[in-house]
Formats: sequence, C-alpha cells, structure tokens
Amino acid sequence: MHRDGPPHPAGTHGPATIAELADRLRLFAEERDWQQFHTPKNLAMALSGEVGELLAELQWLTPQESARVMVDPVAGGRVRAEMGDVMIYLVRLADVLGIDLVQAATDKLTDAARRYPVERVRGSAAKALDT
Amino acid sequence: MHRDGPPHPAGTHGPATIAELADRLRLFAEERDWQQFHTPKNLAMALSGEVGELLAELQWLTPQESARVMVDPVAGGRVRAEMGDVMIYLVRLADVLGIDLVQAATDKLTDAARRYPVERVRGSAAKALDT
Amino acid sequence: MHRDGPPHPAGTHGPATIAELADRLRLFAEERDWQQFHTPKNLAMALSGEVGELLAELQWLTPQESARVMVDPVAGGRVRAEMGDVMIYLVRLADVLGIDLVQAATDKLTDAARRYPVERVRGSAAKALDT
Amino acid sequence: MHRDGPPHPAGTHGPATIAELADRLRLFAEERDWQQFHTPKNLAMALSGEVGELLAELQWLTPQESARVMVDPVAGGRVRAEMGDVMIYLVRLADVLGIDLVQAATDKLTDAARRYPVERVRGSAAKALDT
Repeated sequence: MHRDGPPHPAGTHGPATIAELADRLRLFAEERDWQQFHTPKNLAMALSGEVGELLAELQWLTPQESARVMVDPVAGGRVRAEMGDVMIYLVRLADVLGIDLVQAATDKLTDAARRYPVERVRGSAAKALDT
Repeated sequence: MHRDGPPHPAGTHGPATIAELADRLRLFAEERDWQQFHTPKNLAMALSGEVGELLAELQWLTPQESARVMVDPVAGGRVRAEMGDVMIYLVRLADVLGIDLVQAATDKLTDAARRYPVERVRGSAAKALDT
Repeated sequence: MHRDGPPHPAGTHGPATIAELADRLRLFAEERDWQQFHTPKNLAMALSGEVGELLAELQWLTPQESARVMVDPVAGGRVRAEMGDVMIYLVRLADVLGIDLVQAATDKLTDAARRYPVERVRGSAAKALDT
Repeated sequence: MHRDGPPHPAGTHGPATIAELADRLRLFAEERDWQQFHTPKNLAMALSGEVGELLAELQWLTPQESARVMVDPVAGGRVRAEMGDVMIYLVRLADVLGIDLVQAATDKLTDAARRYPVERVRGSAAKALDT
C-alpha cells in the first residue's frame, strides 16, 4: 500500500491535522458568509450526497476490481476526490457540532472490541467491524 | 462551541491522530481475520449505512433544533456515536485504498477556493462549500 | 398539489405500473448484457448513489424552499430526474430480489399504525412515520 | 424468481397501486398531525436513512451471497422490510412533491436507451443502467 506523501507541516503546504483542516473549512465558510447554510441538517445531507458520489465510482466494479481501483490514475483520482469531499463535510459537521472525530471513533472501537472478542468472532462472516 | 477534551497522547488512552486510528482499525480487523470482508466496495457500503444512521438522528429536527442537538445528552450521545461510526469506516476505507484523507480534503478545498472566490460568491444561496 | 398527467395506458406511451416498469428495466439490462452487473449489492449501491444525488438538490435549501422546489422549472426538473433514477434502481433491485414493493411498504405501514396509534402520538415531535 | 403473491384489490388487504399507497401514507401522516415534519428535506433524509439500513443488510455479503439473500427467511425478511421502508419514504416524498414516480423513471429510461444504444454498449463494463 502506498501513501501519497508525508503529512505537510502546518502552515506551509496546508493542514496536516483534522483540527487545522476544520479551521480552514470554517474560515472558508465565514469568508463567503456561508455559515447560514451550514446547519447540521444541511451538512449531514451534503455528507450523504458525497458518499453517494463515492459509491457511484465503485458500484459496477467487482470486489477485486474495487481493490485495484487506485492503480488506474483516472478512476483512482476520482475516488480520491470523492473521499476528499466526504472528509470535508464530515470534518465541517464535526466542527459545527463540537465533536472530536478521532475520539468518537476510538470510543466506538473500544466498544466493538468488547462486543466482538477475538476468540469468539475470528473469521466469522456474521460481522466485520460492525458497531 | 465546546470540545470534548484535549487529544489523547498516543499509546495512553487511544489514538490521537488519523494514522494511529487507522493502525488500530487495521489491527482490529486482522486479529479477527476480517480483512476478507474489507473490500473497498464493502467498506463504502458500510460507510453509507452509517451515514444513513446519522441522518436518521437529525431527520425530524428543524434546522434550529439540529443546531442544538448536542445540548441534549441522549440525542447528542447518539449523534456522537454515529459520527464515530462514520469516521471508523471512512478511515478504514482510506487506509485500504492508500489515501491520505486530510491531504485529499485539502486539495479539494484549494480547488473550491479557486472556483468560488470570495468576492463573487459571498452570501450566495446558490452554493455553500460545494465541491 | 399538481400531478404531471394521468397514468399512461400500458404499451402506448410507456409503463403505467411498477410491474411494467420492472419488465422494461429487465429488458433494457438483458439487451445490453448488463445483468452480470446487476447483483443486489451493486444495485443497492447504485440506489444509494442516486439518493445522494437527490439530496444534493435539496441540501442548501431551507425547509420552506424545499417545499416549493417544484415551482422552479430548472430545480424541479432536476429533482424529478433524480426521483426517476431512484425509482429505476429501487424497482430493478426489487425485481432481482423478487420483492413486491407496494406490498412490502403496506406491511410496514400496517406495523407502524399499530406501533403509533393516533391517540398516543398525535403531533408528537418524537416520531413521524418512523418505521 | 418468485413473487410474494398477487396484488391485493384496493380496500380489502391494502393498496395495490402506488397511488393507493400514497393516499394511505398521507392519511397516516394527517391522522397523527405529522405533515409538519414531512418537508421534502426531511423526507429525503429519511429516505437516505432507510437506504442506509438496506445497504447494512448486504454490506458484508459477497455478490453471490447477496443474490441468494432472499432464500434465508431471516435475512430475506430483513431485506424485504428495509425495501418496504425505502418505498414508503420514496412514495411519500413523491406525493408531497407532486411527482409521478413511474413516469419520471420511464422518462429517464427513455433517455438512457438513447444514450446507450444496444449495439454500442453490449456487455461493456463501463456502464450498466447508468442514468
């Protein structure tokens, strides 16, 4: 698996952390007087719309094709763009709601580890990271 | 806006960064032999399912009620839990695809700033952070 | 509320019923040898993608603006097109799975009427057609 | 492919057509004074939520397993229930917007037939019923 470069130091090329991204998104909205449109309902709908666009990039692929989608520069670029859009709205929504996304995810993961102990669920088709 | 506490240092309470969360999610899947289920198609569907559950928490609220949803401990807890689930699948999917989420989001934001210069779009109802 | 014309008799202008639409969709797929792509997973992802596109048409509108969206020919035309796409995939998926959509909906509605008797829930903000 | 019984005549077991289902859904909402919650935005969000629940029933299945999901009474029952919920919100939303779903779908299908003539696209992995 390849990564697309090391994280950029803050303030040079762009945000390297979620908090910096959230700040840039907030500034982007404020500069354009768009906060009025950024109610949690609207942001959740926008998030849902972008996830829909992401699924559209994968919907006709077989599971194996989907696993290789990033190899093709055109298809991979489109998937990366949609993932970027999803991240934009998720981070913006979390910022408006005052939620720490990594902490919220970690708390759910801790629950899941408790509900699905390794010995009990190993290899089971019933659940896979279900929270 | 309140935040739910300072980020936790790595290795003590849990991941503080996306990369650490991605590592923990990968380990969670590997321990249970669940990677077989984590094709990009499946993870995208799971992401979509969790976004649906998030929307279900907001769907009957007015925009103003949605802006205050975190004030109620029960409703707010449910929203935070769903945001955590969405984050889990987004980070896991990005890890499987080899995509840096913050960088992908930043690149889209840079595009958006170019397409929607402040002078031209300030306050306009036509678009709001549309990417 | 206005409707866009009486249902068309079968075989003249196009399908008037779900069953006829399902038949036309099946033929459309078969003629192009596309059934191989129409697994329930893929069709469910396509359905999700189209619902995302529908939400994108409404996401920045206030509730009142959304109630009037069909008045504007351009915005209304886009909403109608997305509703058509959602219907296409829902009907195609139901056909592949062998599900009668109206009957399935009716059964859920009967359940909902039992769980939410009028006297108990009238006007309540807690639920609204929740199934 | 099996169907789950003949359509029921109107007024005996339940609606047999979309129009009758729409009428029953409208009455259900009116009796409970819930129309206030049925703005197009809210109904679209509810639709999205139910599609998410449908995807959750299929997300961990292989394409082949998804093609057989209706064989298992428990899994099949859950899929049918979610399809019913999706249909409920799609029909209710169409009714509130004044859109004829079958006609809207038919119009999109006619477009698609024109854009994807059989000779040109037969068997192609590029598109499959894309509208």
